[in-house]
Amino acid sequence: MHPITRQLHHNITQKGSYVCVGLDPDIKALPIHLPRSIDGVNSFLNTIIENTADLAIAYKANISFFESMGLEGLKLLSTLRNVIPRSIPLIIDGKRGDIGNTSRHQAAFLFDHMGADASTVNPYMGIDALSPFFDYKDKLHFVLVLTSNPGAADFERLTLSTGKTLSEAVLAKCTEWQRQFGNLGCVVGATQSELPQLRSQDQSLPYLIPGVGAQGGSYTDAVRDGINQNGVVIVNVGRSILYASAESNFGSAAKAALQLTVQLPKGPVQQVIPA
Amino acid sequence: MHPITRQLHHNITQKGSYVCVGLDPDIKALPIHLPRSIDGVNSFLNTIIENTADLAIAYKANISFFESMGLEGLKLLSTLRNVIPRSIPLIIDGKRGDIGNTSRHQAAFLFDHMGADASTVNPYMGIDALSPFFDYKDKLHFVLVLTSNPGAADFERLTLSTGKTLSEAVLAKCTEWQRQFGNLGCVVGATQSELPQLRSQDQSLPYLIPGVGAQGGSYTDAVRDGINQNGVVIVNVGRSILYASAESNFGSAAKAALQLTVQLPKGPVQQVIPA
Repeated sequence: MHPITRQLHHNITQKGSYVCVGLDPDIKALPIHLPRSIDGVNSFLNTIIENTADLAIAYKANISFFESMGLEGLKLLSTLRNVIPRSIPLIIDGKRGDIGNTSRHQAAFLFDHMGADASTVNPYMGIDALSPFFDYKDKLHFVLVLTSNPGAADFERLTLSTGKTLSEAVLAKCTEWQRQFGNLGCVVGATQSELPQLRSQDQSLPYLIPGVGAQGGSYTDAVRDGINQNGVVIVNVGRSILYASAESNFGSAAKAALQLTVQLPKGPVQQVIPA
Repeated sequence: MHPITRQLHHNITQKGSYVCVGLDPDIKALPIHLPRSIDGVNSFLNTIIENTADLAIAYKANISFFESMGLEGLKLLSTLRNVIPRSIPLIIDGKRGDIGNTSRHQAAFLFDHMGADASTVNPYMGIDALSPFFDYKDKLHFVLVLTSNPGAADFERLTLSTGKTLSEAVLAKCTEWQRQFGNLGCVVGATQSELPQLRSQDQSLPYLIPGVGAQGGSYTDAVRDGINQNGVVIVNVGRSILYASAESNFGSAAKAALQLTVQLPKGPVQQVIPA
């Protein structure tokens, strides 16, 4: 097992949680008492991390939300790795990928400058766009397979001449690349009914599952359908934790929302989490 | 015709050139007399722009090369729009695309913070990942259709159950989206033999064609096969101009390489650029 996957497995077992907390700050959506500034965002994220670190198995920061705040936003992102406890991996969600010469620069930015432990990559351009990422051996790389948005129907769900969908073909390549590189994962949206089918095609790749909460996916379904043979699945929950309250109690509200998510009274979570 | 396409058409007509100069600075590849620093890169790019502005119809900066220099690199990128003559569009090549809520942040970064006139977007996630870009009406957006790298074979070239390739299906969607938004273009690699076939499928979308020069594509072939019914095609030439000389004459060498490219009677660029 890859060291980061092992850390995720350890966190899952210790915390009884599969939740990755999404850190996608929107300066306009900050709790009302915080200043609409980088300092306000910094204070916001610090409070969220303090209140969720006991149950978060990972954090996922989508770089776009930091980019739109300008260079100060990216500077803030580069500090997160040192704010988050070392035992909790930081996934920087950038959905990158370009010709090989260029992907090397993208990977250097995310891992060397921004401090990511893992990233997301877009498979459209094929293996030579992705291998410069996979060459960062100690990092984990989640390839987009079937995303959580309606537009997944445009191309990801198209049927190929082989009878497979494009997403299934991407997953098949991921299985092959995993044998070669050993540091892959896949992104499969919680809102997609194909999740069990994709899981059955490959029992071992760790899935990062966005789309729970505000986007309409269910946490318990995502865990039941997405967990791999080693008991690992990373379910990203973003807005429903981050913006659980717009008042000054937003930290404790985030904590409560996260606790409620992992303690959902019914469903398979309690059947598979070791005591 | 979209205002930026009209500007490109004007530049093509005035300059007798279809060349977009790629500004992808690699700090390790700077001419030997320049300092290996942001100041060195800044000086390098300024000299390249001064020496190529008379024949460049556009500039394309791949953001990854600036990212890998850290925040200082991105700060430098954000100054380029004011260094480049106003009549020459700046394409920032980011290959972005994410769920709609997130793509809005990506677009804001490239257009509002970095000053791009145009960008590149990755179609994998479908229309709702792209429309926040297209909603920037006064900007031009080049959708990846068939890229110039070998990995294009992994997915872009797959045959669908309809008999079309994935790239052809993406192009068909671009034709449809163009009718709705009017500010699209497509990226098709010069190294790909399908270029004439794709051009015949849609006679009007402007193509941005990378892959000429160092990647092995021919400028004259790219122009012949890629030009649209309005006489527009944007052929990106990067390394063979940028690094035409590693000596202090790199500016005049870039100018000479660009002049030779646009005056090519026939054959690929690399056969006629002097060493």
